[in-house]
Amino acid sequence: MKKILVLNGPNLALLGTREPEIYGRTTLADIVALVTAAAQEKGISVDAFQSDVEGELVAAIGCARGVYDGIILNPAAYTHTSVALHDAIKASGVPTVEVHLSNVYAREGYRHESLTAGVCAGQICGFGPAGYVLALEALSRGR
Amino acid sequence: MKKILVLNGPNLALLGTREPEIYGRTTLADIVALVTAAAQEKGISVDAFQSDVEGELVAAIGCARGVYDGIILNPAAYTHTSVALHDAIKASGVPTVEVHLSNVYAREGYRHESLTAGVCAGQICGFGPAGYVLALEALSRGR
Amino acid sequence: MKKILVLNGPNLALLGTREPEIYGRTTLADIVALVTAAAQEKGISVDAFQSDVEGELVAAIGCARGVYDGIILNPAAYTHTSVALHDAIKASGVPTVEVHLSNVYAREGYRHESLTAGVCAGQICGFGPAGYVLALEALSRGR
Amino acid sequence: MKKILVLNGPNLALLGTREPEIYGRTTLADIVALVTAAAQEKGISVDAFQSDVEGELVAAIGCARGVYDGIILNPAAYTHTSVALHDAIKASGVPTVEVHLSNVYAREGYRHESLTAGVCAGQICGFGPAGYVLALEALSRGR
Amino acid sequence: MKKILVLNGPNLALLGTREPEIYGRTTLADIVALVTAAAQEKGISVDAFQSDVEGELVAAIGCARGVYDGIILNPAAYTHTSVALHDAIKASGVPTVEVHLSNVYAREGYRHESLTAGVCAGQICGFGPAGYVLALEALSRGR
Amino acid sequence: MKKILVLNGPNLALLGTREPEIYGRTTLADIVALVTAAAQEKGISVDAFQSDVEGELVAAIGCARGVYDGIILNPAAYTHTSVALHDAIKASGVPTVEVHLSNVYAREGYRHESLTAGVCAGQICGFGPAGYVLALEALSRGR
Amino acid sequence: MKKILVLNGPNLALLGTREPEIYGRTTLADIVALVTAAAQEKGISVDAFQSDVEGELVAAIGCARGVYDGIILNPAAYTHTSVALHDAIKASGVPTVEVHLSNVYAREGYRHESLTAGVCAGQICGFGPAGYVLALEALSRGR
Amino acid sequence: MKKILVLNGPNLALLGTREPEIYGRTTLADIVALVTAAAQEKGISVDAFQSDVEGELVAAIGCARGVYDGIILNPAAYTHTSVALHDAIKASGVPTVEVHLSNVYAREGYRHESLTAGVCAGQICGFGPAGYVLALEALSRGR
Amino acid sequence: MKKILVLNGPNLALLGTREPEIYGRTTLADIVALVTAAAQEKGISVDAFQSDVEGELVAAIGCARGVYDGIILNPAAYTHTSVALHDAIKASGVPTVEVHLSNVYAREGYRHESLTAGVCAGQICGFGPAGYVLALEALSRGR
Amino acid sequence: MKKILVLNGPNLALLGTREPEIYGRTTLADIVALVTAAAQEKGISVDAFQSDVEGELVAAIGCARGVYDGIILNPAAYTHTSVALHDAIKASGVPTVEVHLSNVYAREGYRHESLTAGVCAGQICGFGPAGYVLALEALSRGR
Amino acid sequence: MKKILVLNGPNLALLGTREPEIYGRTTLADIVALVTAAAQEKGISVDAFQSDVEGELVAAIGCARGVYDGIILNPAAYTHTSVALHDAIKASGVPTVEVHLSNVYAREGYRHESLTAGVCAGQICGFGPAGYVLALEALSRGR
Amino acid sequence: MKKILVLNGPNLALLGTREPEIYGRTTLADIVALVTAAAQEKGISVDAFQSDVEGELVAAIGCARGVYDGIILNPAAYTHTSVALHDAIKASGVPTVEVHLSNVYAREGYRHESLTAGVCAGQICGFGPAGYVLALEALSRGR
Repeated sequence: MKKILVLNGPNLALLGTREPEIYGRTTLADIVALVTAAAQEKGISVDAFQSDVEGELVAAIGCARGVYDGIILNPAAYTHTSVALHDAIKASGVPTVEVHLSNVYAREGYRHESLTAGVCAGQICGFGPAGYVLALEALSRGR
Repeated sequence: MKKILVLNGPNLALLGTREPEIYGRTTLADIVALVTAAAQEKGISVDAFQSDVEGELVAAIGCARGVYDGIILNPAAYTHTSVALHDAIKASGVPTVEVHLSNVYAREGYRHESLTAGVCAGQICGFGPAGYVLALEALSRGR
Repeated sequence: MKKILVLNGPNLALLGTREPEIYGRTTLADIVALVTAAAQEKGISVDAFQSDVEGELVAAIGCARGVYDGIILNPAAYTHTSVALHDAIKASGVPTVEVHLSNVYAREGYRHESLTAGVCAGQICGFGPAGYVLALEALSRGR
Repeated sequence: MKKILVLNGPNLALLGTREPEIYGRTTLADIVALVTAAAQEKGISVDAFQSDVEGELVAAIGCARGVYDGIILNPAAYTHTSVALHDAIKASGVPTVEVHLSNVYAREGYRHESLTAGVCAGQICGFGPAGYVLALEALSRGR
Repeated sequence: MKKILVLNGPNLALLGTREPEIYGRTTLADIVALVTAAAQEKGISVDAFQSDVEGELVAAIGCARGVYDGIILNPAAYTHTSVALHDAIKASGVPTVEVHLSNVYAREGYRHESLTAGVCAGQICGFGPAGYVLALEALSRGR
Repeated sequence: MKKILVLNGPNLALLGTREPEIYGRTTLADIVALVTAAAQEKGISVDAFQSDVEGELVAAIGCARGVYDGIILNPAAYTHTSVALHDAIKASGVPTVEVHLSNVYAREGYRHESLTAGVCAGQICGFGPAGYVLALEALSRGR
Repeated sequence: MKKILVLNGPNLALLGTREPEIYGRTTLADIVALVTAAAQEKGISVDAFQSDVEGELVAAIGCARGVYDGIILNPAAYTHTSVALHDAIKASGVPTVEVHLSNVYAREGYRHESLTAGVCAGQICGFGPAGYVLALEALSRGR
Repeated sequence: MKKILVLNGPNLALLGTREPEIYGRTTLADIVALVTAAAQEKGISVDAFQSDVEGELVAAIGCARGVYDGIILNPAAYTHTSVALHDAIKASGVPTVEVHLSNVYAREGYRHESLTAGVCAGQICGFGPAGYVLALEALSRGR
Repeated sequence: MKKILVLNGPNLALLGTREPEIYGRTTLADIVALVTAAAQEKGISVDAFQSDVEGELVAAIGCARGVYDGIILNPAAYTHTSVALHDAIKASGVPTVEVHLSNVYAREGYRHESLTAGVCAGQICGFGPAGYVLALEALSRGR
Repeated sequence: MKKILVLNGPNLALLGTREPEIYGRTTLADIVALVTAAAQEKGISVDAFQSDVEGELVAAIGCARGVYDGIILNPAAYTHTSVALHDAIKASGVPTVEVHLSNVYAREGYRHESLTAGVCAGQICGFGPAGYVLALEALSRGR
Repeated sequence: MKKILVLNGPNLALLGTREPEIYGRTTLADIVALVTAAAQEKGISVDAFQSDVEGELVAAIGCARGVYDGIILNPAAYTHTSVALHDAIKASGVPTVEVHLSNVYAREGYRHESLTAGVCAGQICGFGPAGYVLALEALSRGR
Repeated sequence: MKKILVLNGPNLALLGTREPEIYGRTTLADIVALVTAAAQEKGISVDAFQSDVEGELVAAIGCARGVYDGIILNPAAYTHTSVALHDAIKASGVPTVEVHLSNVYAREGYRHESLTAGVCAGQICGFGPAGYVLALEALSRGR
């Protein structure tokens, strides 16, 4: 595990400024810094990319093969609607961990199903920004 | 039938490098070459466009009217989720044939339904790259 | 209410040239002009943006906070499939009115449900371009 | 457009006295006055009728043909259960606009479907009493 | 079989004046006259009642016991929504035949199910006014 | 109306010998005799055919065009499962009345839906053998 | 608790004369007498109203506010179909207990759901006329 | 009616210490005391048993035959998931009343269905501890 | 690829004489001739069989093994209802292409699902008789 | 128990030659021989019939009454789709045991439901050819 | 096959004393004796265990590995609700036959599905106590 | 965070001996040791309890309040069926993290829904034994 990609989906650029009761006050930059610091301790380098556009996330995953050893992915709203992301993760072959800031099971019923988690290594939800660090830990340990 | 557009959706740029047991080893460039060669014999010119972004596919179809005499469309994962592509095909009025490399009926249940096929001229699935040539044949014959 | 954003989704750039029996002959430019004129009478300025890309609409709503006092949104096909737009509207906090040119209830069953309307102030459908002016009226009155 | 009927369904006689957080404090009389004033400016006369009985609303619509040029209808709870109102509106041929005080999409799931809106000209919801004035505006403009 | 009740539900008072392509041009009075004439030949007297109000139809069936030997019932829209009519027919014990002017199976899916037919002797649909005469014939023959 | 076909589906050859509490004691021959006698009075000739094989019923309907002026069809169990019979009736263009001996609405839920009735002129159920005579009456009257 | 309303829905006026195996032989008058006697012991006065018309029950509940301290409501068939009664009970604010003579869970599946119970204080079913007295007891105790 | 069993299911041992806004502050011991006192007045003796284990509740009901004249059962969460309790109550033949402290209809949708109530004499819900006393009353009255 | 079987299901014997707006005017004999001519060019011989009987189609597929190198199958209505054909195709091991004259996705919802396509090599629909020639092409190319 | 009928449905004639991993290598003739031998020991004679045609199986069951004392039925694919077989078994009154070679519960979900088993004496699945002998044993024991 | 475990689930300890019309009069001891006798003839020893507690059945299956050569399991009500038993059988690897005394397909719909049968060798239902002996026979034959 | 409870559900006692391709070869004792070691580093003490009995898990959670500062819960099969565990976790108020060894989203559809996760702090799945250590990390960090 040398290099990982932290990939964030729609609306997450606004993190820390809106709906703090659900997502907390930490910004996306804070989260990336948090993961980068934790990765540095393990000698892992981190790249981060955020997009509101489903197809750009698909493309980012498509390009990850051979470049990254793991992906930490928060697909946000696309978790529940994107077959394209499912296909991208499956085709890439890069070990991916799905992360959600909030506990998706404590929210609307349609957020309980994930189209993407089944092709990831695993899923972590409900622990806020700490979830990204746990995902890093999970990726670096393997199973 | 003078000019057709070959339009490919998400994850298809990676064709031939991943999951060969489902999609085969042919690349997207190979397929475009295959269709172009077959079209040339019929005196038809071919343009090709691929995008991972649903909205860019929508826009491409929106611009096709008056420019192309037919579209060969592989919407990939968006087949099953995109009302926007359905609306685009319906509004464009350009005869469109939906193609899938794999037999969608032999895969997960949610891949059996197509939101887009009903506004196409027809659908061809399961024949790998040959399906694009069959689609060209279908478009040039009419019904 | 000083400044509003008129935001239009997929396929609406083609308005007035296709399927006039459903959407009428007015172009999107005509609609923007119509709303702008009506807004001017109330001393409200209008910006307009159209995109076929779901994520660009998400981003536009994300940027609206603190810039616009209201949004008139026609999400078109994304109305029925976009959790990301739902999340964007909810997070933005800008009063938003959902508009549809056609009466969605008189069309296919899957167009009766809106993933976005529940986080808008309200919804107006079935009145063609006039619906945008009614939405402006609704926004400027409050409730 | 000379004469319109404002038709209100079950529980709306109590308007303004109960659940003000959903319906506001305006009474049904206030609303009728509001619409009448707005209509007067356009030279349109207004009749109003409220009933808790589904069949009386059906009958009122049945009698509207040839008498009224338009109907503003708030079917309240019957929106979601009445095939009879659907049949009445369809048979009457009088242009009808469905109005809801609250944003039905922000309430229980069963309030998202309307059995009646599909045979109306359009639907307006979420704007409180102002919705009736918007409906008058919509009716008097046509589409 | 001495005396029967012809009971008609919502919107049927308007029969013959609206949507003739579905229901024909015969008025409800014509139908009652048709049944009465056919009944007279069999020495059966006929009473007829129409109401748009579900509860009045329930009450009419409730009062039929001991007074009528059979009911010809066209519940119209209430066919598909009224548990109360189901209970009324079941409790009354008077042999009842359900009639529909149109072929309900050739219309919207929700018109295929009948909440009332299962507690009737049988159902006849699709034959216009003649269906009432067939129902009379069915009632007077028994099974 | 000169010549009609009485067509009976699976298990009806056994009529009158089994489950008399549901179907009565009349045999299929009795029913054909009953219809033939009633038809004779109207100068109509009757042919009858019974088969347990779905495809033979499909074929019989396929051959009816130009030969028969109407069909009285009791598809029995195939009512609820046969798209092929639906297609056959629709394609034949011969006016067809669906008959059931028992009241299908008073039996198991899956017997409430008919795949075939929507392409027939109408349906009659619940009146035992008399239903066939009512169907003859309906066919000879038209609507 | 000074004054309560006993409100009975469709078909209950016939109580005691029909389907005694489900509802027993007691008439509605007997039940009202039973409740009145029990109430008298507690110094509570009782008014009773029965209607087959959904809208009249809605109106009765609408008028109960400020007049009655509690409602004992048997909505009968409307329990399973009436959003209007749900809205009426919710808006009235008068503590209401839903009563059913029979055990609704031992009957058809569609009688297991209640649209009204969720806005009542509670529900009592299966105890015949005694259920009304238990409801009185429940109302007078509070919780 | 000489002897009854008060049977309580999972999580009810903690009653009175948790979620008082739903279940109140009364402990399970308080409830048993309440029922015992009320029973004593009627000369009925009371045994009480609580278990978090579905199978122990099944066994308790299995042993009740010939020992108890009635059961007051609060199956708590097992109400909605236990076919085994349904079978046990049905097999025991001991008159059983289902009680819920809270109004199950005012909670999550999956709590509206009861697998057990249909084989009980009746159900009482929403009245807190008083519901147990009402159940005793119901059991001692018969219907 | 030496010898193929063209297998047609229910109602297709009537092709060309009925519903030409859906199926065109070509007869089944025309289609067989069309395929035979195209096959001859490739040195492939063609046998053709049509039956309205599901079981005869099952038997024909059962006998195809070792005799035919490929099957072109139009199961017509049985596409949507026949598990037996699914099992037959799966067991036969002969490469089979499913063909539909019309675009099944543009028709009723129940025609969108195919019980048979998943065990075929692929599916072609919407191109009228030309679809059979495309299927031949697909079979002779392999994938 | 003197004489039994072993009745096999679609695709079973091919048994032992295809998909041995599901159905084993034994042919249908082997199975009939197996059952006949086991029956002989009990002094029971055996007739066997196989058909791919649903209606022929229906007819065979229809003729079994008075001729056979029991039926061992493997309806194969028709298990899951045939209301006609259900009706035939119910009407015949001959004790029938449903047998499946494979464990239907370990296969696709739609094979878990049987339309026919509910009118049989019982069902045995998963034991290959031995299941027929177990069925014979079950029939000859009674219950 | 040397040693088998006969495992019975909830409510089966009461067998023979309750609901004899469904389960017969034989006690569980009788059944165990019946199986033991039949096993003795084959030189197989039998252990038997019954529990009303799902987890105890899970544990018993968990301990069976290496101890028993086969399990005859009647999970009773847990058949339809227990994922835990499904997991236990799958993990144990001991060949298991599911037995039901009654024909589950002739009872309530929810008893038609089995969560456990798919991981058993097969299922036998409807033959009363004899079903256990058939299961023994099935286990000792293998397939 | 001083003391935590590691709670494991049905079939987990067998861990490491069965289905290693899904759960790995580590035993439950290994996992407890792993968590205990990791906890020791943080000065947290660990208790562990496993039960196959749903009610014993409910009871363990019920007793955890005031004793433990956090629970690591692997409810195994009960995740998908236990309302009782949901109620227990909700009532206990002790922060709980749900852990699954396997990626539940990559298994059968019914394992995608969790009845318990919504009342936990969060869920971690797919990382084998390491998931327990991640859960400990999550609990000790808070959010």
